[in-house]
Amino acid sequence: MQIPGQGQPGAAGRLYNFSAGPSALPAEVLQQAADEMLSWHGCGMSVMEMSHRGKEFGSILAQAFADLRELLAVPDNFRILFMQGGAIAENAIVPMNLIGRRAGFTPKADYVVTGTWSIKSQEEARKYGEVNIAASTEAQGFLSIPPVAEWRLSDDAAYVHLCTNETIVGVEYHEMPMIGQDSGSVVVADASSHILSRPIDFSRVGVVYAGAQKNIGPAGLTLVIVRDDLLDHALPITPTAFNWRIVSDADSMYNTPPTYAIYIAGLVFQWLKRQGGVAGIERANIAKAQLLYDYLDSSAFYVNRVDPACRSRMNVPFQLRDATRNDAFLEAARARGLVQLKGHKLVGGMRASIYNAMPLAGVQALIEFMREFERTSA
Amino acid sequence: MQIPGQGQPGAAGRLYNFSAGPSALPAEVLQQAADEMLSWHGCGMSVMEMSHRGKEFGSILAQAFADLRELLAVPDNFRILFMQGGAIAENAIVPMNLIGRRAGFTPKADYVVTGTWSIKSQEEARKYGEVNIAASTEAQGFLSIPPVAEWRLSDDAAYVHLCTNETIVGVEYHEMPMIGQDSGSVVVADASSHILSRPIDFSRVGVVYAGAQKNIGPAGLTLVIVRDDLLDHALPITPTAFNWRIVSDADSMYNTPPTYAIYIAGLVFQWLKRQGGVAGIERANIAKAQLLYDYLDSSAFYVNRVDPACRSRMNVPFQLRDATRNDAFLEAARARGLVQLKGHKLVGGMRASIYNAMPLAGVQALIEFMREFERTSA
Repeated sequence: MQIPGQGQPGAAGRLYNFSAGPSALPAEVLQQAADEMLSWHGCGMSVMEMSHRGKEFGSILAQAFADLRELLAVPDNFRILFMQGGAIAENAIVPMNLIGRRAGFTPKADYVVTGTWSIKSQEEARKYGEVNIAASTEAQGFLSIPPVAEWRLSDDAAYVHLCTNETIVGVEYHEMPMIGQDSGSVVVADASSHILSRPIDFSRVGVVYAGAQKNIGPAGLTLVIVRDDLLDHALPITPTAFNWRIVSDADSMYNTPPTYAIYIAGLVFQWLKRQGGVAGIERANIAKAQLLYDYLDSSAFYVNRVDPACRSRMNVPFQLRDATRNDAFLEAARARGLVQLKGHKLVGGMRASIYNAMPLAGVQALIEFMREFERTSA
Repeated sequence: MQIPGQGQPGAAGRLYNFSAGPSALPAEVLQQAADEMLSWHGCGMSVMEMSHRGKEFGSILAQAFADLRELLAVPDNFRILFMQGGAIAENAIVPMNLIGRRAGFTPKADYVVTGTWSIKSQEEARKYGEVNIAASTEAQGFLSIPPVAEWRLSDDAAYVHLCTNETIVGVEYHEMPMIGQDSGSVVVADASSHILSRPIDFSRVGVVYAGAQKNIGPAGLTLVIVRDDLLDHALPITPTAFNWRIVSDADSMYNTPPTYAIYIAGLVFQWLKRQGGVAGIERANIAKAQLLYDYLDSSAFYVNRVDPACRSRMNVPFQLRDATRNDAFLEAARARGLVQLKGHKLVGGMRASIYNAMPLAGVQALIEFMREFERTSA
């Protein structure tokens, strides 16, 4: 009933896990974490037991910062922050730190709404200032990304917020939009569900943030990458622990950081480097997504309705044309070791999240199963 | 050079770890986590990889809630919340949720200052309302707890905030203070560094909060236990992810919780039950602390200056009478497998944090070493 998964046939009973998050991690990362659990590098302590101020954890943190900077080619004028609260907390922390940045203007920000996550983000920002919806695809069912030329950006906005991959509907920006450098605004991107799956053009963005639990590591860690001229604009009501300047100046140790989650993230960064870095994993991600979308488009039994130009490489929702077969599909998939395929309740049907840690073999196994399920459903 | 530690002689190279936090965890908890890392209970997934909405993590979360409620005898009218950001973030989240609770009064709170942590707490609260320092032992070097009878409480305060164990100076409330039930105020206790080491009298307190990284589990998890009539007073600028009512109604899953940290905490709760629960571990903690303080008081070589009535059972700072020997002490201790004994920079000297996971044998080993160090220093 269970098959070896996640690219490590030796790990008994591992499944192909299509969860949207928290989601699959590379088996070799988990194996290393297990091996080092009671004594990291022979130091006599678990990483969980180390003082965050000690030299052991200090070396783990420094390596994680350096590897991430290398992987994403983060420019020198950007700071990397390890925070807490996930993207949902950061939805408040972003406006707290940024919406008041334009002296002489009322606090205001533009939001581009492309799905559930950007809806949540703009709702949260309204607590701290004025929100202008620059564009929305809600009327079209969130099946595409609105062209930048049609965005109605404000002259006085502190920033324009995007969710660059919408996990639930499965739409993705395949290019970081360019907004006028002289507009005084700056792009803020919630990249939670596709960070590290592809390069980021930092010349077009001021802030990128992401919850860890898709492509980085365990839930409970939030990554924020912020241009250094954007650190000093926090509203007075910003909690000290969430003030980007203070977090940055303290090397993410103003409060005790989520040390074990940072350690696992560091192991994932090392694993990514062994996959050829972001360029290498992007090639794999393109291949995996293409295989699955090609199959969906060739099938009369399954359907994905997203505009092909905006389809997510990470989250692939699909419907059975006969929705009464949904439960049978999920049950049969589980019996084949293909798990967490149920679609989000807002969309229904199925969703295959094929993040960095999902091997090509997992996508192949899914397609093979889907073909068979179609055959036996005839 | 290294000795078996944390009560599990089989775990090669484990040390006696006196870190103030993140700090030692029971070796059997770490061993179980290592064993289950790649496949929890044979489910084919690591706990890190589980959807927080799935039945597997659902069972882990429900068990953790139930065990914690049992261990601390949390009454039915209190909610248990698993949050993020540590006690430092909670220092802001408390006033955001509570300082505006008294209709018709200006937002205001009383703070009792007994060390570094309560200083930080009251500073943070000033962002959200007026702060009255009801009592402070700063002028006396924070070596005691000010008697409740001397506190200058406000008539119109939303709450009175205490830090019931100050990790740096090592003072502890050995009884939850009773403030008048008819005062309209309520006690809020930061119990980060002694939670689960002793019972809590919930009839005297409205909110207890604690960072996990001492007696609960990995850093990155924050525990909040709040009386249900205190859930509905959040200021409008409170981030949704930190609004107690919303977190409570969502069973701590409004945003993705730190799932792995909750799992480890759950293993710690199970371990605590095997130690005889809080009553059992309290007996052990009393014995450990008494042994160490008795030795310190009997020695002319070492000294602890804290008022004996207020000494912490968890954090035992001590000075060498000859401070020039500090580095030699730390180096010789490390060579004996006794680590992370350096005192906080604000106090200097040494500090032995002897949380729940530190066995009596660790304290005995420390005292044996201290005797020997004194002898060889003569």
